Amino acid sequence: MSDNQVTSKGSYRQRSGRLIRKRGKKVGAAPGTLIHIGAVSTDEIRIRRIIYNPTTLDEATLQQAAQCTPPSTPSDLAWFNIDGLHNADVIRKLGDTFRLHPLIMEDILNTDHRPKIEVHENYLYIVLKMLQYRDDSRSIAIEQVSLIVGDNYVLSFQEQQGDVFDGVRERLRSGWRIRQLGTDYLAYALIDAIVDNYFLILEKLGDEIEDLEQELIERPTPATLHTIHHFKREMLLLRKAVWPLREVLSSLSRDEDVVRNSEIRLFLRDVYDHSIHIMDNIDTLRDMLTGLLDLYVSSVSQRMNEIMKVLTIFASIFMPLTFIAGVYGMNFDYMPELAVRWAYPAVLLLMFAVGAGLLMYFKWRKWL
Amino acid sequence: MSDNQVTSKGSYRQRSGRLIRKRGKKVGAAPGTLIHIGAVSTDEIRIRRIIYNPTTLDEATLQQAAQCTPPSTPSDLAWFNIDGLHNADVIRKLGDTFRLHPLIMEDILNTDHRPKIEVHENYLYIVLKMLQYRDDSRSIAIEQVSLIVGDNYVLSFQEQQGDVFDGVRERLRSGWRIRQLGTDYLAYALIDAIVDNYFLILEKLGDEIEDLEQELIERPTPATLHTIHHFKREMLLLRKAVWPLREVLSSLSRDEDVVRNSEIRLFLRDVYDHSIHIMDNIDTLRDMLTGLLDLYVSSVSQRMNEIMKVLTIFASIFMPLTFIAGVYGMNFDYMPELAVRWAYPAVLLLMFAVGAGLLMYFKWRKWL
Amino acid sequence: MSDNQVTSKGSYRQRSGRLIRKRGKKVGAAPGTLIHIGAVSTDEIRIRRIIYNPTTLDEATLQQAAQCTPPSTPSDLAWFNIDGLHNADVIRKLGDTFRLHPLIMEDILNTDHRPKIEVHENYLYIVLKMLQYRDDSRSIAIEQVSLIVGDNYVLSFQEQQGDVFDGVRERLRSGWRIRQLGTDYLAYALIDAIVDNYFLILEKLGDEIEDLEQELIERPTPATLHTIHHFKREMLLLRKAVWPLREVLSSLSRDEDVVRNSEIRLFLRDVYDHSIHIMDNIDTLRDMLTGLLDLYVSSVSQRMNEIMKVLTIFASIFMPLTFIAGVYGMNFDYMPELAVRWAYPAVLLLMFAVGAGLLMYFKWRKWL
Amino acid sequence: MSDNQVTSKGSYRQRSGRLIRKRGKKVGAAPGTLIHIGAVSTDEIRIRRIIYNPTTLDEATLQQAAQCTPPSTPSDLAWFNIDGLHNADVIRKLGDTFRLHPLIMEDILNTDHRPKIEVHENYLYIVLKMLQYRDDSRSIAIEQVSLIVGDNYVLSFQEQQGDVFDGVRERLRSGWRIRQLGTDYLAYALIDAIVDNYFLILEKLGDEIEDLEQELIERPTPATLHTIHHFKREMLLLRKAVWPLREVLSSLSRDEDVVRNSEIRLFLRDVYDHSIHIMDNIDTLRDMLTGLLDLYVSSVSQRMNEIMKVLTIFASIFMPLTFIAGVYGMNFDYMPELAVRWAYPAVLLLMFAVGAGLLMYFKWRKWL
Amino acid sequence: MSDNQVTSKGSYRQRSGRLIRKRGKKVGAAPGTLIHIGAVSTDEIRIRRIIYNPTTLDEATLQQAAQCTPPSTPSDLAWFNIDGLHNADVIRKLGDTFRLHPLIMEDILNTDHRPKIEVHENYLYIVLKMLQYRDDSRSIAIEQVSLIVGDNYVLSFQEQQGDVFDGVRERLRSGWRIRQLGTDYLAYALIDAIVDNYFLILEKLGDEIEDLEQELIERPTPATLHTIHHFKREMLLLRKAVWPLREVLSSLSRDEDVVRNSEIRLFLRDVYDHSIHIMDNIDTLRDMLTGLLDLYVSSVSQRMNEIMKVLTIFASIFMPLTFIAGVYGMNFDYMPELAVRWAYPAVLLLMFAVGAGLLMYFKWRKWL
Repeated sequence: MSDNQVTSKGSYRQRSGRLIRKRGKKVGAAPGTLIHIGAVSTDEIRIRRIIYNPTTLDEATLQQAAQCTPPSTPSDLAWFNIDGLHNADVIRKLGDTFRLHPLIMEDILNTDHRPKIEVHENYLYIVLKMLQYRDDSRSIAIEQVSLIVGDNYVLSFQEQQGDVFDGVRERLRSGWRIRQLGTDYLAYALIDAIVDNYFLILEKLGDEIEDLEQELIERPTPATLHTIHHFKREMLLLRKAVWPLREVLSSLSRDEDVVRNSEIRLFLRDVYDHSIHIMDNIDTLRDMLTGLLDLYVSSVSQRMNEIMKVLTIFASIFMPLTFIAGVYGMNFDYMPELAVRWAYPAVLLLMFAVGAGLLMYFKWRKWL
Repeated sequence: MSDNQVTSKGSYRQRSGRLIRKRGKKVGAAPGTLIHIGAVSTDEIRIRRIIYNPTTLDEATLQQAAQCTPPSTPSDLAWFNIDGLHNADVIRKLGDTFRLHPLIMEDILNTDHRPKIEVHENYLYIVLKMLQYRDDSRSIAIEQVSLIVGDNYVLSFQEQQGDVFDGVRERLRSGWRIRQLGTDYLAYALIDAIVDNYFLILEKLGDEIEDLEQELIERPTPATLHTIHHFKREMLLLRKAVWPLREVLSSLSRDEDVVRNSEIRLFLRDVYDHSIHIMDNIDTLRDMLTGLLDLYVSSVSQRMNEIMKVLTIFASIFMPLTFIAGVYGMNFDYMPELAVRWAYPAVLLLMFAVGAGLLMYFKWRKWL
Repeated sequence: MSDNQVTSKGSYRQRSGRLIRKRGKKVGAAPGTLIHIGAVSTDEIRIRRIIYNPTTLDEATLQQAAQCTPPSTPSDLAWFNIDGLHNADVIRKLGDTFRLHPLIMEDILNTDHRPKIEVHENYLYIVLKMLQYRDDSRSIAIEQVSLIVGDNYVLSFQEQQGDVFDGVRERLRSGWRIRQLGTDYLAYALIDAIVDNYFLILEKLGDEIEDLEQELIERPTPATLHTIHHFKREMLLLRKAVWPLREVLSSLSRDEDVVRNSEIRLFLRDVYDHSIHIMDNIDTLRDMLTGLLDLYVSSVSQRMNEIMKVLTIFASIFMPLTFIAGVYGMNFDYMPELAVRWAYPAVLLLMFAVGAGLLMYFKWRKWL
Repeated sequence: MSDNQVTSKGSYRQRSGRLIRKRGKKVGAAPGTLIHIGAVSTDEIRIRRIIYNPTTLDEATLQQAAQCTPPSTPSDLAWFNIDGLHNADVIRKLGDTFRLHPLIMEDILNTDHRPKIEVHENYLYIVLKMLQYRDDSRSIAIEQVSLIVGDNYVLSFQEQQGDVFDGVRERLRSGWRIRQLGTDYLAYALIDAIVDNYFLILEKLGDEIEDLEQELIERPTPATLHTIHHFKREMLLLRKAVWPLREVLSSLSRDEDVVRNSEIRLFLRDVYDHSIHIMDNIDTLRDMLTGLLDLYVSSVSQRMNEIMKVLTIFASIFMPLTFIAGVYGMNFDYMPELAVRWAYPAVLLLMFAVGAGLLMYFKWRKWL
Repeated sequence: MSDNQVTSKGSYRQRSGRLIRKRGKKVGAAPGTLIHIGAVSTDEIRIRRIIYNPTTLDEATLQQAAQCTPPSTPSDLAWFNIDGLHNADVIRKLGDTFRLHPLIMEDILNTDHRPKIEVHENYLYIVLKMLQYRDDSRSIAIEQVSLIVGDNYVLSFQEQQGDVFDGVRERLRSGWRIRQLGTDYLAYALIDAIVDNYFLILEKLGDEIEDLEQELIERPTPATLHTIHHFKREMLLLRKAVWPLREVLSSLSRDEDVVRNSEIRLFLRDVYDHSIHIMDNIDTLRDMLTGLLDLYVSSVSQRMNEIMKVLTIFASIFMPLTFIAGVYGMNFDYMPELAVRWAYPAVLLLMFAVGAGLLMYFKWRKWL
């Protein structure tokens, strides 16, 4: 899905997202310079067009960016979904056709952006992060999605093929209410699909973290520690991707100049509530992971105590006994005890008494 | 009461609430799609209706959702309490009867919601969390309660049977002021019952945590650590459930468009104060638990020190003595000391001196 | 003074305030139900009345709540101080006489309240926490004080006898400016007395914590750890009691509708500054305690290191020596060294060399 | 300079500032009661007067508070600098002469105040903290400075002799712009001198903390730990003294009613920027100290590991060897090996093999 | 680039930036006193002038500050770039020519400033921090850049030669849009170059931190700990330098009085978004480093456990065996076992059984 998933094998580092994405060296370049920032994929750029109105729907996969034009029929609405951003020419042509601001074209290509919304005269520009959970590496792949919402068209730009929009496509095909409302409703549907998918991610993370908790209580290993760290890192990246979403949705659901249809603002308000709820859940999971780390560290200390007790008990009992044995192993010519008949059993008894006494002492100190 | 209490046996994980509730796979589905999210119970859905006015009161348990209609007599007020949400048809029928927005019906069924309030043209929609403390598992069960407050009816939706509203029912039956005021007063009474119950929960948690503190000071065990962790987790879930309540109550008690009766706003202001107080208490308990964890870790370190001291004292005293004994246990032919008559007592004396000297050294270092 | 001081002996838990006060079971009860929440004392409720005007002053201890009435002479002002809240009847009678709202009567009896201010038509209702430091248990007793400030009367409700108002009484008797200003000035004087007392508490806590720091640096013991924990807990309860005070005083000192006399608002502004200062001090003490805990934990680790070094040095030196002695203690028939005349001194020399070499190694590693 | 510097010898506690200053017992006393709170010094109170106008300047040291009067010539401005606050009479006389509010006189004497500004009809009242770094004890002495800024006079009250105003005095004498502008410019110059001095303090603290870091990396000792704690404590007190300064300066630099001259507001805006910068620096140093403590604790753990490894390697190698030697030191009559000629070298070889094998095992585990 | 890079060899302390920059002693000096605060360089001050209009461009390196004058031709714009601040005279001459406020000249020379913006009548004054990553010392060099943006000129002051403006110079020479827009666009281009460079720094830090993470998981050493600490320190200084940038850019991009051209405000809004994104990244890296430290500490504890286990297993097995051997090495005359023929093999068997039993015990406790 995203660049940091190209190599899915190897250590945690290779599997999980890079902390800071590469941007290429462009310090001092003019604004609007189109440079793709992200993994360079060899896949073709794929453009899927859906033109629809309340009664008809036409789906097509376009070969040329030049074929992308706003629908000519007044009642028609068009959704262009572009998979792949590595060919700046394609994006430039689209930008020219739909008269996008150069800074926006630059932003679409730069996949290291915070989620944001920009209101332009003829269109909205929305940047979001689409997430995907990789079961094999237990990591989250983050892909940037840019939406351009015009009066009668929606452009959606994704980094790679594969998305969470199949449900929306299905609803478009089955002709439900979605075809009777404008492009802002379509944009809402796309945003809703992205945000709903976050809940799935959080559920999976929640399950993993609960398994981890169970493992930690029953049988902590050094690997457990690395897994806690791995998930903390994932939560960090997740939080960074989701946090600015709230502002975007707040602006969409409240500002009458941004979305004019009050009914759709109501729907967006619902998505906004979801985004708040997602942040709550992320924070809860983060607190949980912090708690697990505390528990791990405390358990390790506790275990160390147990080990030390065993060592101390053994050493404290056998060192005096070995010393006594050593004394009577000395080879002095005049050691009167050695000749005494009951000396040997007496010494054995003494040893037993010392050992038993020390055991009782440890029992009294509650070490046993 | 709630789904996460169905299995009350087993480990902590099974006993306490899941971190993230399951939502089912509905990414990209149309808004307003009614899917129940939560534990599926085999109990019947139970609808209890109370129709009342200042002089009369009529209680009934309805078999059919179709029987739920707003009271026809102008002065009558109706309270419909619905236990169980697993049958979407029932909810849809109710929603149609009372003309609820599809998004609201979806929200009622989705039991993984933050507490919130929505003001609609003909009714208020309020989501709250009802808590119940399980003594056997020492965990908090969280159940979602949705209220629809219309002009002459109140709908309350619960996930399962059993609630904290018996006091309100009693007051309705005994005909006190509650029957002379409108549905907003009834809604206030229900919210007040839910919030008052939080204090009982906090009292129990406070007692448990004080017992834990006592146990920690007198006799910490590894189980103590797990208990601290368990309560930290409960507080995390509790906080998530209660935190958004403040906004709900603030909105209810301040906004004249939401609750028109200023007297009832005064009562709601009181509940709002309680919710602030509850958050204070939750934060105090959380800080307390953090303090207990610190205390535990420090105690374990301290204990380790004690153990190490004992080990070091034993080892440091007996190792030199054993070495001396070992020297005179060597079998060299020419060891002139061995033949000296007073050598044995002299060596014993030397040993005693070494041992005593080391003991004094440890005393001087305050290890004894 | 307050309920949690009734048992002054025993462990820390018994001595210090409960984390969460008991409220009794009243979930779902009607608002305004008068239930005393707090310790039930067997002392009589005591009512002290002071009626004063610029020229005269009359003090009396009343037997009956019925005797409490607003002063009839226009220029007279009355202060009723009620010690003890366990008799709801007394409070109800007072409430009826002074026409208090049922919710306020409920709040006066419920001693588990956050400090707050409520502005009613004919009076102000202020809740504060009065603190007392118990030297024997080194803990803070928290008592709730409720003030009702009417045009020509002030009611002050305390949980038990004993307060910080003696200075105010003295000033009333000595006829200074306090008798020439209205009830809001009297209320200011009472609040000022309560807040000034906080500084005394903080001074004592500050002294205790500095002693603790000294003890920690010179001679840390496990008891030190428990004392740190004890004070952290006290600070937690103290902070909870004082934090909301700022809002109360901010409201009193800024809002012209609450206190009409601008001169008195100036005085209240001064108390407000004090409350900010107190919060600063509380936070400083809390940070200090956190620092002490860090210091303790680090000291324990450091000490462990010292102990381990001693052990390691002893063990590492004597184990090889004992082994050498053991080798020449073996009973093989053919051990040619044993017969060599200079073997014994040579082995002793070898032992000395090994020991000295190891000591030098440890010196080089800076363990000595 | 300040009271907590009177005793400059002894432990950290005596050298660094008290956490909470003593206030004396005045609970319930009337507002405006003049009680000096702070160290009682036996030095005389010293009053230095500078009367100046653009052309002339007159300096004098006054013996009597009665000699302090606002300048009579219209164009003259006067600066009275009072060192020492222990004589309440002097302050009262000054207060009477300049008609100060009783609460302000009380505040000037009470040296435990937060920095604050109060705007009165005829003058401004500003409280600041003047700092001084004591190299011998590596601690910060905090002294309270109160400024009264009237139309043609400035009063500055200090706790003891010695201040940071010499530069201002020099500029007054040398007749630069300072003599052509009003008292608010003089007040600005005094505040600027106090705030600039904070940078010197921070530089010194920064140097000390960098030395500490170096020491910690190269050679941590238990004393390092106490020094970290000591500086954390100093930063705590420093932060408490400086934090409220921002509000004071913000108010001075923004509010046109407070400082009318916009040019001077610009200068004050500059001081405000400095105060923000100082807070940034304080926070950076605090974070740095926290980092040093973490580093210390981690280093200690790391060192413990090293020590444990040495112990374990020695013990694990010599214990088996000593055991083998012990076996052949047994005195059984029938131990056939003892009579074998090559048994002794064979056992020595076995011992060597065991030792070498264990060493290789530890090498393989990377302990060596 | 900056003063703290003059000595690039030696320990971390010398290599990384000082915590608090030196300011020189100027407490009480008059505002506007020109004192250079920073490293004194022996390099000459270099002034580069670029005069341009849409059609022509003229570059020159000036020898004299006197040659710096605003362009006389109305359509011309001039950019003066001054490298080096150690000669206050040069700055004073420039200040006089362009009529800068004395406080601003003072601020330009004082290189220890927070990023800020000041709006003056005829020009904007902007302070920024230019960063450079030193690969050899893995540290960030921080240099202060001051911009004066007038109607037809821009002055940029740097501490030393070498900057990030080469891209801007190239664009000026190649005659793109930058030459057709005003000085505010040039200022935008310079700010954009500085901010874009931050991303490069963060990328490098991100890579270093990921390498560190990898090292920590695979092979932690004490040096790893110091590297974590080193990067935490760098992040601290970085954060302090970047944090106030947001306010500067927010003010530039929003306030119509500051930048009149709405198109340029749009560009600045883009830079503002970048600054937010940079802060997000800094916080993520800081959290990551905190996580690494936790991981390190936990790993060390875990390793200690492993070491202790090995020690305990060895000691616990060989101590009893050595004791048994010691018993039969005693020299009592009457030890009947010694004469028994099968006693020796029996004792060997006993030893084997004890050893095996202990091994099984440790296996059962999962220590093996």
